[in-house]
Amino acid sequence: MDFSIRAANVEDCKDIARMIMELAEYEKIAQHVKVTQKDLEQDGFSKNPFFHGIVAEVPEQHKTNDGHTKIGYALYFYSYSSWSGRAVYMEDLYVMPEFRGKGIGKALMSKVAQLGLAAGCGQLNFTVLDWNKSSLDFYLNQGCTDVTNDMGYHYMSCKGEALEHLAQP
Amino acid sequence: MDFSIRAANVEDCKDIARMIMELAEYEKIAQHVKVTQKDLEQDGFSKNPFFHGIVAEVPEQHKTNDGHTKIGYALYFYSYSSWSGRAVYMEDLYVMPEFRGKGIGKALMSKVAQLGLAAGCGQLNFTVLDWNKSSLDFYLNQGCTDVTNDMGYHYMSCKGEALEHLAQP
Repeated sequence: MDFSIRAANVEDCKDIARMIMELAEYEKIAQHVKVTQKDLEQDGFSKNPFFHGIVAEVPEQHKTNDGHTKIGYALYFYSYSSWSGRAVYMEDLYVMPEFRGKGIGKALMSKVAQLGLAAGCGQLNFTVLDWNKSSLDFYLNQGCTDVTNDMGYHYMSCKGEALEHLAQP
Repeated sequence: MDFSIRAANVEDCKDIARMIMELAEYEKIAQHVKVTQKDLEQDGFSKNPFFHGIVAEVPEQHKTNDGHTKIGYALYFYSYSSWSGRAVYMEDLYVMPEFRGKGIGKALMSKVAQLGLAAGCGQLNFTVLDWNKSSLDFYLNQGCTDVTNDMGYHYMSCKGEALEHLAQP
């Protein structure tokens, strides 16, 4: 199937917000999603953006029953490893279920890798849910390593009251 | 003990590079460290830096046997969660062994939290090694959650030839 991959712009935020929610429902964490279209517009498309986006589009004749032509996305930002230097972090990679198995996810991730390499990044990092075997297999097949399994790194988070408390001098 | 916490500047890169290596030796991954003082100067202190740093300093009279007064550091960068929006990621948190137990690590992490909150971030994320019980306990005592344990997220990485291959269109 014909599809195109391009940098996201502010007009894509409505579709990205929709797909973030679809991904969260798939990952069974929809109740955690607080990000809105407006947040995405503000945080990704103002000066010093917190993230960058890529969207996958299909031609009008392949649009979904709901009329969508934007059917996949990736969000990423530049990060840093104190071992290996410049890195790129892929926050999300999503393709709508009916468009999977056509190389669209691979093309989105490939674009993130290209942009990362062009910026001098030596690694592309991300997280994956351990029960999501099809995603895990997809990534392992690309030659990615499971740093949690191989080295014992656990992903940690501090938020809400704990973060407020931590910030007290 | 008297100590001060401040934003890192380019003159701190020599000490940060030294402490990155000390931390890597403690984490038993020294062979993975490729980052040099020059990388840090270039990547952290030019336009559009890939990270920011904080250093902890003690007065001259408390310097180490080797003459060091910069005895701890944190590296962080801004990131993004598609669930909760703006986030800050703490790449490293390190205090030299002889200065531990004095609240210096807590003060460094608190500073990252303050800066994150001031920038509108809703969470502070980082990774920790599962065998590093003293660090894990320190973080859990601050109210942090282990996202890998609680939700099953694994940290993944693509680098070297796999990254080059992935970037092929």
